[in-house]
Amino acid sequence: MRKFVVLGHRAITSADFKLDDLCGSTGRLDILLRCVNSAFFLSHAIRKDVEIALMLLGEPNPPKTIRIDGSEVKYLNPDERSTAALIRNALLQKGEGERKCSPGIYVSERNYREVLSNISKESKIYYLKEDGEDIRSAEFGPDCTFVLGDDQDLTPEEEEILMDYEPKKVSLGPISYHADHCITLVNNELDRRTPRSG
Amino acid sequence: MRKFVVLGHRAITSADFKLDDLCGSTGRLDILLRCVNSAFFLSHAIRKDVEIALMLLGEPNPPKTIRIDGSEVKYLNPDERSTAALIRNALLQKGEGERKCSPGIYVSERNYREVLSNISKESKIYYLKEDGEDIRSAEFGPDCTFVLGDDQDLTPEEEEILMDYEPKKVSLGPISYHADHCITLVNNELDRRTPRSG
Repeated sequence: MRKFVVLGHRAITSADFKLDDLCGSTGRLDILLRCVNSAFFLSHAIRKDVEIALMLLGEPNPPKTIRIDGSEVKYLNPDERSTAALIRNALLQKGEGERKCSPGIYVSERNYREVLSNISKESKIYYLKEDGEDIRSAEFGPDCTFVLGDDQDLTPEEEEILMDYEPKKVSLGPISYHADHCITLVNNELDRRTPRSG
Repeated sequence: MRKFVVLGHRAITSADFKLDDLCGSTGRLDILLRCVNSAFFLSHAIRKDVEIALMLLGEPNPPKTIRIDGSEVKYLNPDERSTAALIRNALLQKGEGERKCSPGIYVSERNYREVLSNISKESKIYYLKEDGEDIRSAEFGPDCTFVLGDDQDLTPEEEEILMDYEPKKVSLGPISYHADHCITLVNNELDRRTPRSG
């Protein structure tokens, strides 16, 4: 299983936003929407072996964690607007614990440490960082989780929490990329190492 | 100079579309919008050494070629909707020859052969294709142009025209990717080969 954890530092945590102004009115939720696209979409298929946790950390009700499981997800389209509608729907769900909002999409109030703690039980954690080892020479087992920020790096506090899970730092190249482009590059690197049948 | 030519086989060639329904009402112009994002956006900058030609080949007035030059472009944002607004504006421009619509954005009625012919004078052409040489082992000079389709492969006729320019086929990995993801992967490969100062 391949997982991504994306920290949306200012991403809105209520459904009170307009689909017509995703860039301006959502605390850059648009970045996380593009991450969903690059995590899941293949030319004519959805990646079933991928999961993404979007951590929405902005006002008014942080944290909200949206978990999307590629093995179950339905109604996912590649454009930003339709994914935003799915996430807005998830943010409307009241309740406790992790709730299913639509097939393969879950919402909870899990914080960053809880998300990492859950994942680290069964997955090696990787931190996408410019000063890490080149991803092309790094080793990967079958269960990998990649942690990355939105348009802002992890804060020192977030980095400190992450260090408790002994992440391996990996770098994607000589330039700093948008989060969604990073996910595309990670997917390609792991695709190249995955034996295919048929 | 790094260039991309993307064929939008059904992409709308009038400004008569809604920004609220880019997936449904534009002949999959949304795919080309995401290509613009992956061609130009770095973490905190626009790539100045990149140019993209979006070939809009759908009804009602094909062909329309939108050329975006990274060294001049302004008002470009990473989201689909705002890029769609720039392209809709370009499609409103009447006139002959190639017209400037906004800084770095040009529209013309150049067809596919004319676009390739212009580019091939100063750039080696590469065709992104699953059965090509692995991009990681391919050789690249300073001037490279990559040709790719939207969600549809090039037609046999389009492929035949392309062959006149003796393209080199390169492959991105074992799986077929969305056009915008392909552009991200090409950019990363070339970034890794480009000496950086500072």
